[in-house]
Amino acid sequence: MPPTSHIMASPNQQNLKKKNAEYSEKFKNGDLKLPPWKKYAVITCMDARIDPAAAFGIDLGDAHVIRNAGACAKDALRSIVISQQLLGTREILVVKHTDCGMLTFTNDDIREVVKKELPPAAAVELATLDFLPFPEVEQAVRDDLAFLKQTTTIREDTVVSGWVYDVKSGAVKPIAPA
Amino acid sequence: MPPTSHIMASPNQQNLKKKNAEYSEKFKNGDLKLPPWKKYAVITCMDARIDPAAAFGIDLGDAHVIRNAGACAKDALRSIVISQQLLGTREILVVKHTDCGMLTFTNDDIREVVKKELPPAAAVELATLDFLPFPEVEQAVRDDLAFLKQTTTIREDTVVSGWVYDVKSGAVKPIAPA
Repeated sequence: MPPTSHIMASPNQQNLKKKNAEYSEKFKNGDLKLPPWKKYAVITCMDARIDPAAAFGIDLGDAHVIRNAGACAKDALRSIVISQQLLGTREILVVKHTDCGMLTFTNDDIREVVKKELPPAAAVELATLDFLPFPEVEQAVRDDLAFLKQTTTIREDTVVSGWVYDVKSGAVKPIAPA
Repeated sequence: MPPTSHIMASPNQQNLKKKNAEYSEKFKNGDLKLPPWKKYAVITCMDARIDPAAAFGIDLGDAHVIRNAGACAKDALRSIVISQQLLGTREILVVKHTDCGMLTFTNDDIREVVKKELPPAAAVELATLDFLPFPEVEQAVRDDLAFLKQTTTIREDTVVSGWVYDVKSGAVKPIAPA
């Protein structure tokens, strides 16, 4: 077996190894418990311009951070039920953001791209998937909060709030409750 | 309308406002573009003890960060297809971790909790949902990489790798490729 693992590692894999070695050398938080200390979960976008810990003031151990394309609550449902029922969280902050990729396409658009870029089987596999795009971000926040309040799968006593993060200024704006 | 919004805000909402005000005051990264600069996506867990930016060396603008219960690739599929087909990423790093909540239950276990804690409608709504628990973390990483390699919905030229983050030491361990 040739010792090629370092040679073969991609630049992004090498970066993870190198930066994590520096991080773990100084690491002092090995005693934190599994359940989030502050009993809340944040649902935010996978967008590369968001650093939830720094921008939203989340210290290590405080909160579950769920991230997906668009910060979509519906897509986060499996994680939220686990967060609430097994790990005791009782509050959800939904933080969407300006200039979100989800504002730039429709389900039909992405289905066209999939048809062009991937094998025919992919279009079949994704035929029933809702990619959950939205045309306006503040309304999308309100719609997600309405979904969280309406579904019986989320505890009735859950405190929910919605926010929009501005990727130009780094500032969050509260949407609901005001 | 009484000006009760500050009084009504929960401690976690107040924390977000306060810490974000400090963050945005010093914010200097408003020029970053939407597509991730380094063209990769990380799938990791929502666990409160993980700070992906710091622990995995992800600078603002570098990468999509997808987080869900267990860092489950299957659950991240919608986000990954959007990441690849609309925003140009070509690499995926799956980072699961030690002491994960997903190691502690089965689908039957959580269905029992749901039945006990939530209205009957919730059990019906969640009847077909796979919560995607796993009994062993390194095998779960390998299973997720196998899923990503096998599905036609992910580009064939995608570079994939799998890792386990140790919440006690802060160190990542490469699982595959070695």
